[in-house]
Amino acid sequence: MKVFKANTNVLPLPCNGKANTSSGVYGVDVWLVNKFLQAIGEPALRVVLWDGKEIVPPGSKPAVGMVIRNRATLWRLLANPLLHFGDDYSTGRIEIEGGLVAFMETVYRTMDNTSKFRRVPDPLAYRRNQPRLNSLLGSQHNIHHHYDIGNAFYQLWLDAEMLYTCAYFPDPAVSLEEAQTAKMDLVCRKLCLQAGQTVVEAGCGWGSLARYMARRYGVNVRAYNISREQIAFARQRAKAEGVERQVEYIEDDYRNITGTYDAFVSVGMLEHVGPDHYRELGTVIDRSLRDEGIGLIHTIGQNIATPMSPWFLKRIFPGSYPPTLREMMDLFEPWEFTVLDVENLRLHYAKTCEHWLERFERNRGQVQEMFDESFVRAWRLYLSGCIANFTIGTLQLFQVVFSRPTNNNVPQTRSHLIAPAGKS
Amino acid sequence: MKVFKANTNVLPLPCNGKANTSSGVYGVDVWLVNKFLQAIGEPALRVVLWDGKEIVPPGSKPAVGMVIRNRATLWRLLANPLLHFGDDYSTGRIEIEGGLVAFMETVYRTMDNTSKFRRVPDPLAYRRNQPRLNSLLGSQHNIHHHYDIGNAFYQLWLDAEMLYTCAYFPDPAVSLEEAQTAKMDLVCRKLCLQAGQTVVEAGCGWGSLARYMARRYGVNVRAYNISREQIAFARQRAKAEGVERQVEYIEDDYRNITGTYDAFVSVGMLEHVGPDHYRELGTVIDRSLRDEGIGLIHTIGQNIATPMSPWFLKRIFPGSYPPTLREMMDLFEPWEFTVLDVENLRLHYAKTCEHWLERFERNRGQVQEMFDESFVRAWRLYLSGCIANFTIGTLQLFQVVFSRPTNNNVPQTRSHLIAPAGKS
Repeated sequence: MKVFKANTNVLPLPCNGKANTSSGVYGVDVWLVNKFLQAIGEPALRVVLWDGKEIVPPGSKPAVGMVIRNRATLWRLLANPLLHFGDDYSTGRIEIEGGLVAFMETVYRTMDNTSKFRRVPDPLAYRRNQPRLNSLLGSQHNIHHHYDIGNAFYQLWLDAEMLYTCAYFPDPAVSLEEAQTAKMDLVCRKLCLQAGQTVVEAGCGWGSLARYMARRYGVNVRAYNISREQIAFARQRAKAEGVERQVEYIEDDYRNITGTYDAFVSVGMLEHVGPDHYRELGTVIDRSLRDEGIGLIHTIGQNIATPMSPWFLKRIFPGSYPPTLREMMDLFEPWEFTVLDVENLRLHYAKTCEHWLERFERNRGQVQEMFDESFVRAWRLYLSGCIANFTIGTLQLFQVVFSRPTNNNVPQTRSHLIAPAGKS
Repeated sequence: MKVFKANTNVLPLPCNGKANTSSGVYGVDVWLVNKFLQAIGEPALRVVLWDGKEIVPPGSKPAVGMVIRNRATLWRLLANPLLHFGDDYSTGRIEIEGGLVAFMETVYRTMDNTSKFRRVPDPLAYRRNQPRLNSLLGSQHNIHHHYDIGNAFYQLWLDAEMLYTCAYFPDPAVSLEEAQTAKMDLVCRKLCLQAGQTVVEAGCGWGSLARYMARRYGVNVRAYNISREQIAFARQRAKAEGVERQVEYIEDDYRNITGTYDAFVSVGMLEHVGPDHYRELGTVIDRSLRDEGIGLIHTIGQNIATPMSPWFLKRIFPGSYPPTLREMMDLFEPWEFTVLDVENLRLHYAKTCEHWLERFERNRGQVQEMFDESFVRAWRLYLSGCIANFTIGTLQLFQVVFSRPTNNNVPQTRSHLIAPAGKS
């Protein structure tokens, strides 16, 4: 599970240059293009219009560009770029030159210099552009929208263990599989897992972490998830691996977690909870965690609170929002949880998404057969936007470890975080 | 520099038990004692009054107790325990049995169960009980009050390098000297220092970290501090060590920092800044830190915002306040600084204070000659209160590493934090 920053859908067109403005209609188009470029901070782009005319910034050789297939698209972009770039790219009415990731990085960077699209702290950012909030029922709809579109689809581009969260690359050269295993092991070490302990996992995806914990650390895990497809897959795998007695997958909302545990872990769920439900989640953690327990939240985050784009919330991840550390404190403060450790894995997620996009592109033929070409393009845009946002630093990945304030049995150094030779 | 949590001065007296209530006056005293015990959550204490009468909770054998030397003290305690316990302990009108640290841990724990003294989040906590705020002039008064009482005094109980901040114990058995060196090296590693780089330090104490950085990492440091006594000492040491050309000590406020640097570091100053000045400090960091720079803030903290006690603010550290992580975000968010790493060293500070208290007690005769017995007792109470607060988890120690959001040259793992063999 994850959520991505979604300025993913604004686009700019460069102005002036070689444009032939003798035609009246063409003059209007250039004017529109110029309005855009001003609105989004005048990025260095080549723009090609439907009639083959090229518009480039004077005296420059842009590394990226866009082709706009018809005038209606240009108008839509002007009216609501944050929604329509995504849709028009998906339907092929916009083509990108020089690479989608490079294109988006270029545009994001200049957008932040504009008055209209500048990222400024917004205390209600998490509510903006949301088609549906994360009530018990709302969450079911939101999660179903993304996660229940077919395990076969995700198997085409995730690793074999089906981890759909940021991997950890101890070395940039390791494979995605190795990096996902390293991530799971890092999480286990941060939680100081001991054989025989009990763990509750909120939002378990396809269940790989729960199985890993059981297999490698000998703990008993109850793992919650409201995605039916994921739970079915997870149970099947647990049985195949012979850990079905150690791992119980429960198709239910985190709000319905019962029992007390030695560890509370949630990897990639918080993005789907929403800050207006953090106290609710904190209540669940408080009643679930034993006095000597350790908790870990792994989530996409932001440095400042800014909204997700409407396209992203409509087409990709309804209900999602990556919190700031400030917002995350609502999980901890009401119960005086002590933050023990925060690690920011931002560039690990850029690399993870690069792996996903590469596998996705390798299998795009099959994706197209399963869905259609516009689905392929929408997901390409989404994955590319993730890479761009993590690369330029508009998204973060926080792993936060916490305990009760009175727990003096937590590790005093980080030596337990170093993987023993031959492990992970 | 540091600041300590200062419930340090509430005290409770246990009730009932063997008290002889036949005397009318004595009956009033027992009533007062009972009022107290109720107010502070009925801790298990033995109370001995001025006439030798003992009051213990029925059926218990308390491990700690207090002797109240006269009736006026008992009345003062009732009127304003958070102020008068400290003063009456200092003047010897209160004596503690069973150890001051154990006594305070016992009382703090039950106080938090009361309606009057329960620690609840208070957004204006940092302003409560403050005799003086941290304007440019106010800071000078506040810092002078604590740090300029004589280097000779601090030399009696700090390590030889005069570090007055939380040490880092890679192993609990290492000496205070080794732990302070380990702390400095940990800070240098977190900052990824390279020979030839420039560092600015805000609030440099007696200058040990700046000299260490210059000596061991070959960097050039400008170190700011408004304590005249500390700066004089720091310059002398730098000269003696031959690093005076690499380290410039500047007697000035952090707000007057000029220049740009590869690293910004502040160890134990934030406690004296006050959350209403965090944006000001953030502005300084923003203008001082190069695009590829790394910053580190090391500070005492809290899980929730609660005020310091009036005794502590009046007698020990005026103007001080240990922030929550939420409050610290005011340093980072306005400039979109990325939090890379947070480490909580709470129990390292309990151990550091244990070392300080032990050395302090060993040299209390000299302290008494320098000042007087009530000074000895006030500082014993302060150091003991620190140990208690860090031990029971009402104070934290946060090391926060940050960079600009666009800095992709930060370390991707924590392998650089492991000290190479033979180093520190």
